[in-house]
Amino acid sequence: MQSLPARIGDPLAAVETPALVVDLDVFEHNLDLMANAVRGSGLALRPHAKAHKCPDIAKAQIARGAVGICCQKVDEAAVFVAAGIADVLVTNEVVTPSKIARLARLAQAATVGVLVDDARVIPDLSAAAAMAGGTLHVYVEIDVGAHRCGVAPGAPAAALAQAAASAPGLRFRGLHAYHGGAQHLRRYAERLTAIAQASRAAAETKALIEAAGVPCPVVTGAGTGTWQLERDSRIYTELQPGSYVFMDADYGRNALAPDEHAFEQSLYVLATVMSVPAPERAVVDAGLKALAFDSGPPIVHVRRGVEYVKGTDEHGVLAVDPAQETLALGDRVWLIPGHCDPTVNLYDWIVGMRGERVE
Amino acid sequence: MQSLPARIGDPLAAVETPALVVDLDVFEHNLDLMANAVRGSGLALRPHAKAHKCPDIAKAQIARGAVGICCQKVDEAAVFVAAGIADVLVTNEVVTPSKIARLARLAQAATVGVLVDDARVIPDLSAAAAMAGGTLHVYVEIDVGAHRCGVAPGAPAAALAQAAASAPGLRFRGLHAYHGGAQHLRRYAERLTAIAQASRAAAETKALIEAAGVPCPVVTGAGTGTWQLERDSRIYTELQPGSYVFMDADYGRNALAPDEHAFEQSLYVLATVMSVPAPERAVVDAGLKALAFDSGPPIVHVRRGVEYVKGTDEHGVLAVDPAQETLALGDRVWLIPGHCDPTVNLYDWIVGMRGERVE
Repeated sequence: MQSLPARIGDPLAAVETPALVVDLDVFEHNLDLMANAVRGSGLALRPHAKAHKCPDIAKAQIARGAVGICCQKVDEAAVFVAAGIADVLVTNEVVTPSKIARLARLAQAATVGVLVDDARVIPDLSAAAAMAGGTLHVYVEIDVGAHRCGVAPGAPAAALAQAAASAPGLRFRGLHAYHGGAQHLRRYAERLTAIAQASRAAAETKALIEAAGVPCPVVTGAGTGTWQLERDSRIYTELQPGSYVFMDADYGRNALAPDEHAFEQSLYVLATVMSVPAPERAVVDAGLKALAFDSGPPIVHVRRGVEYVKGTDEHGVLAVDPAQETLALGDRVWLIPGHCDPTVNLYDWIVGMRGERVE
Repeated sequence: MQSLPARIGDPLAAVETPALVVDLDVFEHNLDLMANAVRGSGLALRPHAKAHKCPDIAKAQIARGAVGICCQKVDEAAVFVAAGIADVLVTNEVVTPSKIARLARLAQAATVGVLVDDARVIPDLSAAAAMAGGTLHVYVEIDVGAHRCGVAPGAPAAALAQAAASAPGLRFRGLHAYHGGAQHLRRYAERLTAIAQASRAAAETKALIEAAGVPCPVVTGAGTGTWQLERDSRIYTELQPGSYVFMDADYGRNALAPDEHAFEQSLYVLATVMSVPAPERAVVDAGLKALAFDSGPPIVHVRRGVEYVKGTDEHGVLAVDPAQETLALGDRVWLIPGHCDPTVNLYDWIVGMRGERVE
């Protein structure tokens, strides 16, 4: 358990590092930009809360018009339902009996959805819902190109939808058609092609399901890298972006088309210089346990000629160009994480800053 | 906060995944192997607790003869001192005034050491120790080849030792000469060369300090990859290995010399198959938030023809050779983490298993 990194009203200098810090002005700008861009499109916005894992942020999204949230684990769903979020979709397969039972109990207090990509799980979900006396919303996950989970689009998905629709205690809601790999394709044309394919697969599957007499009102998916494409696809009905609230170095490397909305970086890891062994080297207190490195090292914010070159458990080594920047013991350094979701996962606290003050 | 993954006495099947699991028989074998290999050498064993962050494990190490523990952060030191560990060395520079004050307060209840590599911090440490009415043990960190923190060996280090030795409230204990980069050199000959250099640098610096009339009783350092070399160096007096209790895929890639002790893998991430979209692909519930990827993906234990090929936030994609292995929904998969320390950091709980039962 991390000790409390700051108190409300603290100045920036009092924040203990390494700390996960959100610039609240930018964060609220991102919230508004997404809410406004989806409002009026006829689509629902169901932001993915695996990015922030924070009920207060979920409530800020719902206050701006989101219909509910997505999360990725039963543990997360339990936290959000306990915090009063009324509509939670677990965008994942749940197959362990104890977790299925827990999910069904959550559905007593909230609208709870879950994905299926295998018919063998449907009797278990149905029995758990009956046992808990409630209804689980079920979405069939189709593989639209990410090649992770998901049944093949077309007939296999339609058969699964039929099975879900006829199982007691379950309510078939539609298709989950998320293309994870497309989020990080650098060129707009590549993202366009990927989501066009995903949309075709979803449309054909939906038509097949409805031709068999099963209503399929929802097609849900999309992320921060592609959401405008799904919004304009005429087949998706619900969007699930998550990282847009924070952004990260990896999303920053996507080349945007002129009409794509640009979100701004609101999330930082605040670090302190704890050693300056040489003018061209400084060491900060944020390493492998303070930042996720799966999408590369963090970017050093604002300071010119400073690069984060190596992370070890509790150290980050910075290469400094002495002609451009001098770092001294105790200096604060703002780092833009390579990948926001697993970085947020490393912290018990998010410090919200308004200007130079903890809010 | 992770929900409790298991209860004492549970069978393996009841452990909620992803879970951090330790095979207690192997773990105790590793503890004994290290304790026996250091006992009788005249050196002190001060295991690094940043690997496990667990007071119960620290106590098991001390019960086998360790003189105390190392940790990397003031937060960690506070947890270990509160748990009754009497001798804690923070193997890191501490420069922030609030952290220095906290460290000095810990020294009221335990023997507490800290590193310095910059003379500007010595007055702050001294004042904090005086304020708390105690004594802080101080070690000068020298850069013996890792090029992270640390003052240059020789005269700069000797000057720093002199300053620490003459500051009220501080007790200069010796040199911190840890070569982090040497731990993961794959070939024995490379490790031998690196530690020979480190030993020479430490010996020359110690001689210089003592020539100025300042006693320098301790030279501390070493890790799981090189500890036998420091043990046999005739200059190191204390060893700090940490990962040996668990091991990981990265240490498993070190080629050992015939007389080097081999520790065995005791740490696993237990995962569950949650989707089998095709015979050659399965997806488990352990991804970027359940495993550290800085030293590569995990290795799949025991199952032949199965490889962990891609991690995303909550998913791990396995490539399966159907001729060798079939994975089904709900199957348990044991993963050997690429790097143990930052993987342990992701969990609130370590599940100790004795055979098939939670202990």
